[in-house]
Amino acid sequence: MEIKSYIVGFVDGEGCFSVSFNLRKKLKNGVEIRPSFSVSQNERSKNIIFRLKEIFGCGSVRFSAKDNTYKYEVRSIKDLTKSIIPFFEKYPLQTSKQNDFILFKNICKTIKEGKHLSQKDLVSIINQAFQMNAAGKRKFRKDFLLQIVAR
Amino acid sequence: MEIKSYIVGFVDGEGCFSVSFNLRKKLKNGVEIRPSFSVSQNERSKNIIFRLKEIFGCGSVRFSAKDNTYKYEVRSIKDLTKSIIPFFEKYPLQTSKQNDFILFKNICKTIKEGKHLSQKDLVSIINQAFQMNAAGKRKFRKDFLLQIVAR
Repeated sequence: MEIKSYIVGFVDGEGCFSVSFNLRKKLKNGVEIRPSFSVSQNERSKNIIFRLKEIFGCGSVRFSAKDNTYKYEVRSIKDLTKSIIPFFEKYPLQTSKQNDFILFKNICKTIKEGKHLSQKDLVSIINQAFQMNAAGKRKFRKDFLLQIVAR
Repeated sequence: MEIKSYIVGFVDGEGCFSVSFNLRKKLKNGVEIRPSFSVSQNERSKNIIFRLKEIFGCGSVRFSAKDNTYKYEVRSIKDLTKSIIPFFEKYPLQTSKQNDFILFKNICKTIKEGKHLSQKDLVSIINQAFQMNAAGKRKFRKDFLLQIVAR
């Protein structure tokens, strides 16, 4: 078995590219952007979760006692743009998750290039983020975040 | 990308090996055994579902309007033992789904070898099937099925 192709299939099934937001009064625009790549599995299959950390050479593994799962997660913009994104550019996802990945990649690129994001960039990031993960739950509504940014 | 390794990863995430039961008064033991290998995806990712049918060269794809998903499924014992099982023997699953696969393989082997299953075989199949898919829902309780078979 070719492990990298296996990983693409596994992430197509179980992986999640997401961009969430937090309110931070100290930030210029009032909104913090939190991109994340993650894969979770029940405790029974924790081996593959630790394997992901090995293969990508970044990120962390956390156990959640609440639902008995192990989660591999990469949040650092440096690791995302140096390891995760180039991997899935080389080995593209085959499901609709590829659409999420494209948006995720654009958002990470904008964050990396602009240390001090313009209001325009932030609005664009919020709009793109809300096109991702059709079924996902959101802490804040899009309208609310756009209002904060517009102030 | 190497498609077979990709498939192993994808099935490790999204695939399901299951053995369900139906009551059939016409059968000697009163219980029909229904092994199934299936993979479902939202309509957005239907391409990969049709791709699975191509790659395995058996099974069928059905659309469920209820939850807007496409399901690839193989139920024929001939196709399971000729195509599906040899594939996952050659390219082993890497998560705890491998345990389900081993039980599934044993059950299919027993069904294929014994056209007329003994009561002992059937009890063994029921016991193995109930060790599979930890979180899955069951139409009948194990005790109930064992009672039917014991009559």
